Amino acid sequence: MSLLSINHQRLKHDIESLATIGREVHNQGINRPAFSDADMLARAWLKQQIEQAGLDVYEDGAGNIHGRLNWDETKASVMTGSHIDSVPGGGHLDGVLGVLSGLESLRTLKESGLALPRPLEVVAFSDEEGRFGGLFGSSAMCGQLTPEAIHQSKDLSGQSIVEAMAKQGLNAMDALTATRKPESLHAFVELHIEQGPILEQKQLHLGVIEVINGLVKWQVKLRGSAAHAGAAPMDMRKDAFQGLAEFGVALPKLVAEHGGDRSVATIGRASLSPGAANVVPRLAEFSLDIRDSDQETLNNLVEAIHRYLSDMARRRQLNFDYELHSEIAPVSCDRNICQLIDETASQLGINHTRMASGAAHDTEIMASIVRTGLIFVPSKGGVSHTPAEWTDWQDIYNGANVLLNTLYQLVNEQ
Amino acid sequence: MSLLSINHQRLKHDIESLATIGREVHNQGINRPAFSDADMLARAWLKQQIEQAGLDVYEDGAGNIHGRLNWDETKASVMTGSHIDSVPGGGHLDGVLGVLSGLESLRTLKESGLALPRPLEVVAFSDEEGRFGGLFGSSAMCGQLTPEAIHQSKDLSGQSIVEAMAKQGLNAMDALTATRKPESLHAFVELHIEQGPILEQKQLHLGVIEVINGLVKWQVKLRGSAAHAGAAPMDMRKDAFQGLAEFGVALPKLVAEHGGDRSVATIGRASLSPGAANVVPRLAEFSLDIRDSDQETLNNLVEAIHRYLSDMARRRQLNFDYELHSEIAPVSCDRNICQLIDETASQLGINHTRMASGAAHDTEIMASIVRTGLIFVPSKGGVSHTPAEWTDWQDIYNGANVLLNTLYQLVNEQ
Repeated sequence: MSLLSINHQRLKHDIESLATIGREVHNQGINRPAFSDADMLARAWLKQQIEQAGLDVYEDGAGNIHGRLNWDETKASVMTGSHIDSVPGGGHLDGVLGVLSGLESLRTLKESGLALPRPLEVVAFSDEEGRFGGLFGSSAMCGQLTPEAIHQSKDLSGQSIVEAMAKQGLNAMDALTATRKPESLHAFVELHIEQGPILEQKQLHLGVIEVINGLVKWQVKLRGSAAHAGAAPMDMRKDAFQGLAEFGVALPKLVAEHGGDRSVATIGRASLSPGAANVVPRLAEFSLDIRDSDQETLNNLVEAIHRYLSDMARRRQLNFDYELHSEIAPVSCDRNICQLIDETASQLGINHTRMASGAAHDTEIMASIVRTGLIFVPSKGGVSHTPAEWTDWQDIYNGANVLLNTLYQLVNEQ
Repeated sequence: MSLLSINHQRLKHDIESLATIGREVHNQGINRPAFSDADMLARAWLKQQIEQAGLDVYEDGAGNIHGRLNWDETKASVMTGSHIDSVPGGGHLDGVLGVLSGLESLRTLKESGLALPRPLEVVAFSDEEGRFGGLFGSSAMCGQLTPEAIHQSKDLSGQSIVEAMAKQGLNAMDALTATRKPESLHAFVELHIEQGPILEQKQLHLGVIEVINGLVKWQVKLRGSAAHAGAAPMDMRKDAFQGLAEFGVALPKLVAEHGGDRSVATIGRASLSPGAANVVPRLAEFSLDIRDSDQETLNNLVEAIHRYLSDMARRRQLNFDYELHSEIAPVSCDRNICQLIDETASQLGINHTRMASGAAHDTEIMASIVRTGLIFVPSKGGVSHTPAEWTDWQDIYNGANVLLNTLYQLVNEQ
């Protein structure tokens, strides 16, 4: 089979054009939270690109923007996509790479004049990043939203998604109509930047994702007693911070001992109360994010961490409790699609590897209604969600070409 | 020598009366930050009590309220006092005990008809607690303020002491006129609650303070690299929180190894940036409060802590720096006054001990211009700066009687 190639310059131009929207201040990154004015500008720009490519524009009730080629609603389509919303101060590739590489793939296939036995769709999903909780558009498409959940979705300032969408002339409740029937989809493939250091450190140029890590998120509280930092001798304290510190040091050891090769655990947020320099803290509150690609390993690790926290708190005369903030099972990508991506990358001569995704992506939601594939390209320095986010153009072109050829083969599947 | 006694019921009534000012909501403690409306009400109440006791009211430029007995500006006076401002949500005794026991002592001496060879003064110092930095009134009295320092003093909301005092009809710059000449003072003695657990745990009822701990306060920053909590393997992270945790666990060991019996070190405030549950923190910022009663021990401990932080940061590839926020040398009380308090407590049959003060008090500022004494009574559970602050009435009466008899002997000194 001969290989297709996207137009590199055109993809680069698209990425650079979209990067100007929501970037008011140099060096402060991309600011396109879902349904913000900048996000709406980006959406308008994207619709224009879809139209100019001669594709059909379709926007569903969740605000997911589709570009459709060879559309025929009686046939199961091959879908690709990602998101164009960003975290505050984010990078220019997170999500964008998948949407614009998808658009470029459809444009290339249209121009090729090749026969396309199935329809193709590129989708930009709404609020992947989580201004209102995250993965909103893909959840809507997979029928995972409820009226209650929509009404309760709020951003950090307290504005609801209902209010935010209404301001932009959209009705959040219409998201309930965005559900796609499983039989309307043949496959879903997403291209995304890795957002981690593994590919770079292994000097590889592409990752084929077998599984998206499951995660457990806790908000933990350790309670001791406040005391005057000058007046309370060290051995008469019930210092909540000391409990947090001991647990913090133990955490990597617990991961090494009870987790697997892919296990990670992170304390990303912590606060002490009352929070004065001269008061021994009575309360340490912190987030705990635990991930693994295997459900049983994840369960074992979470159990070991729970046991450690309980024992440590008892020993230190602290009170321990936690709230479960999130629990997502590991999600596997389709074996055959992984195989297809693998072979395509090999044919293109790209050094690649099988790996797990530590981050969540729309793919993991889409997997509930369609078989999926997920492709990573390297992130310089492993960083994302920062203006410093970067991927070499050659890696971007490679990723887009793997996507294009994978999509073409899926379109030709029975 | 026969011993004098205060009027217990009158002191109890005063303490209970003042505890109603600034306590709008039950169980939320006393809210009388310096120069707040509640503080102004408390000041007005205090002036009224001083007048009703037949003492002279004097308010200096720093807003320090004096009650004077037998005033004669040609003679060096015996001064007692503390403060009536409070932290937000504080207790009813912190500072108040010293002011009202001082007032009751002067009232008792006036009523006794005894000859008083020296003038006596009870003072309520402004902003001891630190709405605008702390120890404002005693610093003014000791000539330690500058126009620049006054203009720069702000509360957490950004309001300056100049603005706050102006709102209450006071001119902060007048604090520069509050300076007392050393020769105008014969001795200063303060009664205060311990705010720590030592007396209670040793089942003692009074502490004679030999020294007020010196302290060093740092604001420390450990900088690593942000990374996605799912995508960055544990061994590829530069996790700033992990540096904080390791240091937190090491801190009590460093105190045990490099400090003395009285050394304490506390991390009371900590924050992680960017502070999201799913991001490995690039920055851990925390307060560090280190205290000891001996300057050399304190220096050694601070040096050992600095060395540990440097080494640890280098080993973890973190960047370490700190700002010195405060540095106060240990301050000794006067040996003879300590001896006098000791003997008085013995004569009154009160089990007592020599000890250090972990907390700062107006006494430590006053020591720069006059010889001082400081007396502690036990704090239930060792707690202060909370609505749960409590001292048994009998301990309060004991403390006040030790203060009264100490003052009387100082008045009679040559």
